[in-house]
Amino acid sequence: MGSQMKLKCKLFDMDVSEPSVMLHDDDCIEIGVREGDRVKIAGSKTAVAIAAHSDTLLERGTIYIPFSVSKVCGVRDGDEVSVTFSTKPDSVRSIRRKMDGEKLDKEEIHAIVEDILENRLTKIEVSAWLTALYINGMDISEIADFTVSMAETGDMIKFEKGPVFDFHSLGGVPGNKITPIVVSIVAAAGIMIPKTSSRAISSACGTSDFVETFCNVELDAESLKEITQEIGGVFSWGGSMNLAPVDDMVIKVEHPLGINPRPQMLASIMSKKLAIGATHLVVDIPTGAGTKVETLEAARGYAKDLMQLGEKIGMHVECAITYADQPIGYAVGPNLEARECISILEGSRHPSAVVEKACDCAGIILEIAGIPNGGARAREILDSGDAYRKFMEIVVAQGGRPDLKSEDLKPGQFSYELRSPKTGYIHSIKNKDVVSIAKAAGAPSDKGAGIVFAKKKGQRVEEGDLLLTIYADNEAKLKRARDTAARYFPMDIEGMLIKRVSPLGIR
Amino acid sequence: MGSQMKLKCKLFDMDVSEPSVMLHDDDCIEIGVREGDRVKIAGSKTAVAIAAHSDTLLERGTIYIPFSVSKVCGVRDGDEVSVTFSTKPDSVRSIRRKMDGEKLDKEEIHAIVEDILENRLTKIEVSAWLTALYINGMDISEIADFTVSMAETGDMIKFEKGPVFDFHSLGGVPGNKITPIVVSIVAAAGIMIPKTSSRAISSACGTSDFVETFCNVELDAESLKEITQEIGGVFSWGGSMNLAPVDDMVIKVEHPLGINPRPQMLASIMSKKLAIGATHLVVDIPTGAGTKVETLEAARGYAKDLMQLGEKIGMHVECAITYADQPIGYAVGPNLEARECISILEGSRHPSAVVEKACDCAGIILEIAGIPNGGARAREILDSGDAYRKFMEIVVAQGGRPDLKSEDLKPGQFSYELRSPKTGYIHSIKNKDVVSIAKAAGAPSDKGAGIVFAKKKGQRVEEGDLLLTIYADNEAKLKRARDTAARYFPMDIEGMLIKRVSPLGIR
Repeated sequence: MGSQMKLKCKLFDMDVSEPSVMLHDDDCIEIGVREGDRVKIAGSKTAVAIAAHSDTLLERGTIYIPFSVSKVCGVRDGDEVSVTFSTKPDSVRSIRRKMDGEKLDKEEIHAIVEDILENRLTKIEVSAWLTALYINGMDISEIADFTVSMAETGDMIKFEKGPVFDFHSLGGVPGNKITPIVVSIVAAAGIMIPKTSSRAISSACGTSDFVETFCNVELDAESLKEITQEIGGVFSWGGSMNLAPVDDMVIKVEHPLGINPRPQMLASIMSKKLAIGATHLVVDIPTGAGTKVETLEAARGYAKDLMQLGEKIGMHVECAITYADQPIGYAVGPNLEARECISILEGSRHPSAVVEKACDCAGIILEIAGIPNGGARAREILDSGDAYRKFMEIVVAQGGRPDLKSEDLKPGQFSYELRSPKTGYIHSIKNKDVVSIAKAAGAPSDKGAGIVFAKKKGQRVEEGDLLLTIYADNEAKLKRARDTAARYFPMDIEGMLIKRVSPLGIR
Repeated sequence: MGSQMKLKCKLFDMDVSEPSVMLHDDDCIEIGVREGDRVKIAGSKTAVAIAAHSDTLLERGTIYIPFSVSKVCGVRDGDEVSVTFSTKPDSVRSIRRKMDGEKLDKEEIHAIVEDILENRLTKIEVSAWLTALYINGMDISEIADFTVSMAETGDMIKFEKGPVFDFHSLGGVPGNKITPIVVSIVAAAGIMIPKTSSRAISSACGTSDFVETFCNVELDAESLKEITQEIGGVFSWGGSMNLAPVDDMVIKVEHPLGINPRPQMLASIMSKKLAIGATHLVVDIPTGAGTKVETLEAARGYAKDLMQLGEKIGMHVECAITYADQPIGYAVGPNLEARECISILEGSRHPSAVVEKACDCAGIILEIAGIPNGGARAREILDSGDAYRKFMEIVVAQGGRPDLKSEDLKPGQFSYELRSPKTGYIHSIKNKDVVSIAKAAGAPSDKGAGIVFAKKKGQRVEEGDLLLTIYADNEAKLKRARDTAARYFPMDIEGMLIKRVSPLGIR
């Protein structure tokens, strides 16, 4: 219920995370809206949320509109516009249905995705949606509808011919720099792999964060397609295209809640792959303490869901559950990971875990593409220098220097050596603390910031031995990282005897 | 992870529904915060949510603080303050636990209530909390803890001696003007009843909305206590005291979601009764289509919960499940309901449903207080004029005119008569449509606005007979109400034969 009112627009310069306008309390009563209700401005298509006011700061007869909202409504400062109450979109009812544990149909899911994208749902409503998804979940056919809607509300890339492969890592383990190696091996085998990656969300360094230290990652859809068709692969940042754009909007609500509901997580991954035109996908599921997936059982669950979801949306999916109880390789941070990654392509056999993991993952792709003994063939492609040559072709196509060398990528000029306080064995390296230290040092925005390990899990150390070196681009952040390392010591070092169990109990 | 940064304060004049400040993107990265994260300002106790910016509108080195937030932090325009990342309050983890279906302990529930009250939780978090409550619920001992926390975080009124009675109607049925009658009867019987009521939230007219047409309802705690102890009762607006204040903050999130989770609803009612010092409570549960409680089974469920909850918090609770398939009495709207209510106290026997319901509810209270045959005794108190005299004592104590007459309360000067389009019987009167029409006419803020019924359910009407009259204080709103009545015709009028069932099926 509500009436129309003519109000004068007053624009103001605040960027708001959800469209909102401000009105005097008495005008709210007259129009028949309350805080959190929607109003329609000047007959625009977009209904925006309002924030009512008891303050004397607002004048009657005026509607206060942030610039960003004024653009959507097409109004200018001083305009007189009609303002009316606007009903909620139907998708709010579907959110309620999910709260009630019901199954949503394709149209309802599509409406929710579209309304989030078009900013027609408030943060309160999106939060309720994600909480309902977290608690009540979705069955696999709902997730498939969700995936397709998320993909179709953004750009869809189509390759003239297939198959088109993709590779994805669930993430959560620091130092996981295998993607450019996998892409280079696969492309060198003549297989198309238009790989898009993300920047760090909560981690210290996403794939795009380190790849951009040596070439441009912001490809548009056209260049991504061209380079992939010509050379076989790219290392692109997904955010530079409009792929499943609703995902980025949802993350803004997920992040403060600290949740990532399973249907949202699965649809988020798969919608981007669908949008990029992938027909075949291999997913790396790093499994271990301090990563997103902590147990083998959970990893198997994700693998099953991803494969079933692939089947529903017509994509061949296989998964690699990988060891991730400690950082992958020795380097964490943009320049440091780039250096370690490129040195392997240049011919270094070190660190062997990175080489092995990259070849295993590439090998699965090769086998799906019909190349027998994929892992061994991947290793041959790497050892022969074919992967390196393919890597350089891609780098140059993405605007990188043709004379790129791993040693071009320098650690930050400020460093601190963390040494062992005692003699013993490294029982564990805590992924989360490693991430905290690297971020304190400035990663991923400071390119030289990060960590280089001297020792890994299982190795023996004497008191005073070097454990790791922290690098930073400025002294203040190095200090911050040192403090962080002191607070959360990132390794457990113990003797071989952890607990002595005697008839008197555990000591 | 995050560092401290010295920023210059720039205050601006926006009242925000949750505490938020704005920072330049680069400063966000430097401090280590993202949109929706919390920052601590100048060592203040209060951590506030931030809104990150990509805009060029914000300057680096500046923190933009709304006035309302600046007061909490104690900063002034131009001050240089240190800004640091602040962790989420522990209650966010408890919200997660409720999302995971776990039972919360007393301390966790208390922390959530306190953090909502102190604005330490964002709207996203409060929305997740309410959604989790809606889906996963609470057991009765959690609800009891919740109730006590909600009461104790506001003012608590203590009477020197008991018992203290209270009366509550779950609401949802239009025209339910019995409260002043119940209070007058009960107080006339020598029983204390410090009744607080609410204004309309989604209805056309709350008890306070019509009581304020003839006396002041904004009593402070001191006057409420004094008048109750001297005269026996009050008709006060709960909002003028600080009773269970967190409830009003939660409503701002519940309302846009269109949910009222059962634990929240129960705790909301009972915390206000606890805060007012009630030892005994009778709850009216209006039951019927278009009200909050639609079925007898649901009503019994609420009654059981309320009584169990009363037992847990040491309050004697009884419930009256009442008929509410149509509006109570003939009048809907502030002046119109006041007129009907006062005329009954003055001696009118009409409408009999209002008289009967008021005496039944007052009768239950009398019986709990030890007066046998409560219903009959209540009727005697009403018929003898004792209730009227008590009513006038309360009115005068609350600043009303000593010569108040029901006919002083005038309908709006603009009116429209809705007539029957056909001959038949009134099969139903739709509560929700009645509310929509009365609100369209301007209720509850326009005091003359509302509806007077000429016919009620079950009555026979000829084509062209008057069904109801709509009143409004201005012509535009009358038109709006007419349009609303045309859109949702508020009555179903049918012949006695509704469907003919023959061997050929239902026609």
